Amino acid sequence: MNDTLGDMRRSHHCNALGAADTGAQVVLMGWVQRRRDHGGVIFIDLRDREGITQVVFNPDRNAAVHEKAHAIRSEYVLAVRGVVEKRPEGMTNPALATGEIEVMVSELKILNRAQTPPFMIEDQVDVNENTRLASRHIDLRRPSLQSNIMMRHRAAAAARRYLNDQGFLDIETPFLTRSTPEGARDYLVPSRLNPGSFYALPQSPQLFKQLLMISGFDRYYQIVHCFRDEDLRADRQPEFTQIDMEMSFVGEEDIMAVSEGLISSVFQEVGRAAVSPPFARMTYQEAMERYGLDRPDTRFGLELCDISDIVAASGFHLFSNTVKKGGIVKALNAKGCAGFTRKQIDDFTDFVAVYRARGLAWIRVKEDEWQSPITKFFSEEEKQAMAARLDMQPGDLVFFGADQPGIVNESLGQLRNHLGKKLGLIDENAYEFVWITDFPMFEYDETEKRYQALHHPFTAPAEKDLEKLASDPVGMRSRAYDLVLNGSEIGGGSIRIHQKDVQVRVLEALGMDRAEYEEKFGFLLSALDSGAPPHGGIAFGFDRLMTILCNTSSIREVIAFPKTQKGACLMTAAPASATAAQLGELGLKVRRVEQS
Amino acid sequence: MNDTLGDMRRSHHCNALGAADTGAQVVLMGWVQRRRDHGGVIFIDLRDREGITQVVFNPDRNAAVHEKAHAIRSEYVLAVRGVVEKRPEGMTNPALATGEIEVMVSELKILNRAQTPPFMIEDQVDVNENTRLASRHIDLRRPSLQSNIMMRHRAAAAARRYLNDQGFLDIETPFLTRSTPEGARDYLVPSRLNPGSFYALPQSPQLFKQLLMISGFDRYYQIVHCFRDEDLRADRQPEFTQIDMEMSFVGEEDIMAVSEGLISSVFQEVGRAAVSPPFARMTYQEAMERYGLDRPDTRFGLELCDISDIVAASGFHLFSNTVKKGGIVKALNAKGCAGFTRKQIDDFTDFVAVYRARGLAWIRVKEDEWQSPITKFFSEEEKQAMAARLDMQPGDLVFFGADQPGIVNESLGQLRNHLGKKLGLIDENAYEFVWITDFPMFEYDETEKRYQALHHPFTAPAEKDLEKLASDPVGMRSRAYDLVLNGSEIGGGSIRIHQKDVQVRVLEALGMDRAEYEEKFGFLLSALDSGAPPHGGIAFGFDRLMTILCNTSSIREVIAFPKTQKGACLMTAAPASATAAQLGELGLKVRRVEQS
Repeated sequence: MNDTLGDMRRSHHCNALGAADTGAQVVLMGWVQRRRDHGGVIFIDLRDREGITQVVFNPDRNAAVHEKAHAIRSEYVLAVRGVVEKRPEGMTNPALATGEIEVMVSELKILNRAQTPPFMIEDQVDVNENTRLASRHIDLRRPSLQSNIMMRHRAAAAARRYLNDQGFLDIETPFLTRSTPEGARDYLVPSRLNPGSFYALPQSPQLFKQLLMISGFDRYYQIVHCFRDEDLRADRQPEFTQIDMEMSFVGEEDIMAVSEGLISSVFQEVGRAAVSPPFARMTYQEAMERYGLDRPDTRFGLELCDISDIVAASGFHLFSNTVKKGGIVKALNAKGCAGFTRKQIDDFTDFVAVYRARGLAWIRVKEDEWQSPITKFFSEEEKQAMAARLDMQPGDLVFFGADQPGIVNESLGQLRNHLGKKLGLIDENAYEFVWITDFPMFEYDETEKRYQALHHPFTAPAEKDLEKLASDPVGMRSRAYDLVLNGSEIGGGSIRIHQKDVQVRVLEALGMDRAEYEEKFGFLLSALDSGAPPHGGIAFGFDRLMTILCNTSSIREVIAFPKTQKGACLMTAAPASATAAQLGELGLKVRRVEQS
Repeated sequence: MNDTLGDMRRSHHCNALGAADTGAQVVLMGWVQRRRDHGGVIFIDLRDREGITQVVFNPDRNAAVHEKAHAIRSEYVLAVRGVVEKRPEGMTNPALATGEIEVMVSELKILNRAQTPPFMIEDQVDVNENTRLASRHIDLRRPSLQSNIMMRHRAAAAARRYLNDQGFLDIETPFLTRSTPEGARDYLVPSRLNPGSFYALPQSPQLFKQLLMISGFDRYYQIVHCFRDEDLRADRQPEFTQIDMEMSFVGEEDIMAVSEGLISSVFQEVGRAAVSPPFARMTYQEAMERYGLDRPDTRFGLELCDISDIVAASGFHLFSNTVKKGGIVKALNAKGCAGFTRKQIDDFTDFVAVYRARGLAWIRVKEDEWQSPITKFFSEEEKQAMAARLDMQPGDLVFFGADQPGIVNESLGQLRNHLGKKLGLIDENAYEFVWITDFPMFEYDETEKRYQALHHPFTAPAEKDLEKLASDPVGMRSRAYDLVLNGSEIGGGSIRIHQKDVQVRVLEALGMDRAEYEEKFGFLLSALDSGAPPHGGIAFGFDRLMTILCNTSSIREVIAFPKTQKGACLMTAAPASATAAQLGELGLKVRRVEQS
């Protein structure tokens, strides 16, 4: 039988005591991290969320307590009363905040016992992730997860503090909302009181926060869960957390300034390095040209370079034909990489194939020649022009992509990031922020044969481009902006459409007729017609931000109870089947699931 | 065409300027609350969330701007630049913080126009609630809703500040969880990646917060949405907000002390009166005896009084038979109410009938007699005993309930609250808190013929009652506690079971066999066996708390986007039908809905 807590209460956490406390009577409570028996004395590393303190059971000091301590095993939960003593000469542990002292125990309560854990509770544990997720309550005891979750708490608190100080109101928006089958897929929630009808879980509080601006709340924020029923990639979760904001009577500069203040506050609280706004700015077009991606990692160079004009008339038909057909040819000079083997180069070819590149041409720059299957196709003039534009020096390895712009940019942009990591070009302690601006308003969806909003249909077009709405939708820029950190998009937002007529024209450009937009967005249009102020906002992906701040590669390391890529919680075994009674009340039937 | 904001930026909110600012150049932005034309001059009350400032368009000062101002209508969105001037003698408005000044406008932008609102934007608006809910974006402009939502923000911020200072960690728990068909009905979310399987939206983060304690996080909190798919009563919403907490290595006293600190912080921020812990305590039994309810309104007396012993042998067979059959007879002395008419008394009879009382006996105490159909059945001795116990004085009106204890207590307890309001016994500015303790662990469910947990199955039994688990479940007390404020339960919690064997025995007492509890709660039992500390917690109903703090009768007045009693959002028309494609992906079919 376990001991009960009774009236015993902690006096200190397990990271609190030092030499200055010598002689103090203390009560500590926590978990057994490690037990050692040495010379008949039992030493326990007692752990809580704050740290570790060594507690000692010495038969010469208290024989009964020492006797009781024999039962102690790993992860048992203890309460100990004792006196703080300096550790003997040579026994101090400078790696531990409490390493100068130990607690000589005079009273021991074994509050709970524990089965041997399924894996060691330490960071370098070599166990597959599913095992850890199935016993998440034990996994969460590991120091790195403890630290990440506590850091997340501090980051959220810093964000709230900043936003409260800036006059933002934390206003809750509903989770049971209306499905708007635009953008990503909704999670549906069947309504029992309205059988056959469904709520949707929000992909973001977008329309509600706009309505709050229309209501006059002026500055809104929320740290809030959002939901997208997508096929889950490595770094996606079915539910994710946004720091969501909206402001009235503002333009892009105002939102960027507040965002920079917010990010600075959070990084000051938990970051590894200082952050100094204002952040760099770059247009979407420049980002695509120089980095191939709209989320450039600006911690290193290795920029892409367009050589379409140089090779347009070359004898290398793959290049010249590509240019003729409206494609582009871009190159990437991996300085000093001429030593890469053929095998390594083939691996890069495989790498870009993932991004639909059908090949990866390359030139190895030697002291006296260009080593490459394609050198022979170029004239001396073309070679000189290339060498000059790409700064080709002996020892360099140049990669080429030739295809439609989308494929070239994506594949070389990804290759650039890949090489940046591989070549050690990245300062892992640096935080490089850049605002991406002047996004296109629409993109043409070849599959659905219609225009789609690059951000969302409520994003305002650039004022000067408004007249292009009918004539040249793809040429329009929007008032959207993304914040990119170290090559990850951590936030995105826009100035919104606040005028009903503009909103109607944008919805029409997206292919909706009046009946459709009135049915889906009638309430928004009516609200825009009721005195809507100019407004805009932004949302930050809190999980991704924490992933970067915690210096981890997986989003699951910054979420207390994450799901697998199949959307399962391995601990509680969710999702699970519903009872017939539950389905009956909802008026639903599960159809036979086809096995494919 | 509307004016664009351009580079114009606000210098002040609409509640900021006073006589000290006279002569300042300012820029204000907001909505047109009211327009008056007087002597050729146009006066606008410009409103934002902070307040109202009078802005003036005077043709003698700026003819062009005055001309433009003619177009202004109610709820238009304006930006004005101008100079602060003292209002002329006799024109100041002491009811307004800015009532000493006005802004003489030199530049006007009409940022947006507005249709005439469907109802006036003022508090005393006489329009039915559904109309207001359908245009919630306009409804939210009313001063009381603006104030309530801002007060809610401040209350949440105060709660977080206090809990952060106390070492609590804000940790997010999942919304897509496993259904545990205990207690209330779950909202289900079909899983597309696992067709035929369902998540459930959490009724509370109960098990996750316990797991966090087992993981060693020590102090957890969250202000979080929870979901219950119940038939909605007036003051229920399908989703509601809890301030949810859990602590390790604690007993009841610790949680009550932290709770009192939390509540005091919130009330200090937004309350109408000071709150001074420690709060009163009362056992469940005492609350039932004196008030008939486990959430007694202790702002007034009018207590119930048991007279079963006095009437057990009386000639009034309704009373004596009730006592013989194990029922009770209780009375309520409405002092000074002998003047109530027969019609009024009949209304009270109807009132208690709602709570299943089959009648309401009464005695009017006159100077020289008891006026009542039942007086004749009592002996002199019985009458004397009653008069003494109930302090029956001329002018009093005594009500009697006779039935099974549950019915008597509920109906007379509700009648007591009803009379308290009707008789004006309640100080509407008082905050009367009381902790209710020593709840029964189980209650017997006559319908299902089994025991049910009065709180939830994870509530610890009182240590001294543990041995009654097999022999006398109904006689057991639990370690649960509720916090009651002015007759509303605003919070409830308990010390939890932290030992696996106790948890198993409680689940067995609830009628589960091993297969069932392993399937439903296997992960919890395994976690309790992995080093679970003693722990406990509490959750406060934030919506109800705000209802009291905002002094409003409806929960919908403290929620930005509430739903109707049918669970509908009248603005967005949620819930709505799903598309065939959506249902197909989920492997679901909507069955024909029976019209009943």
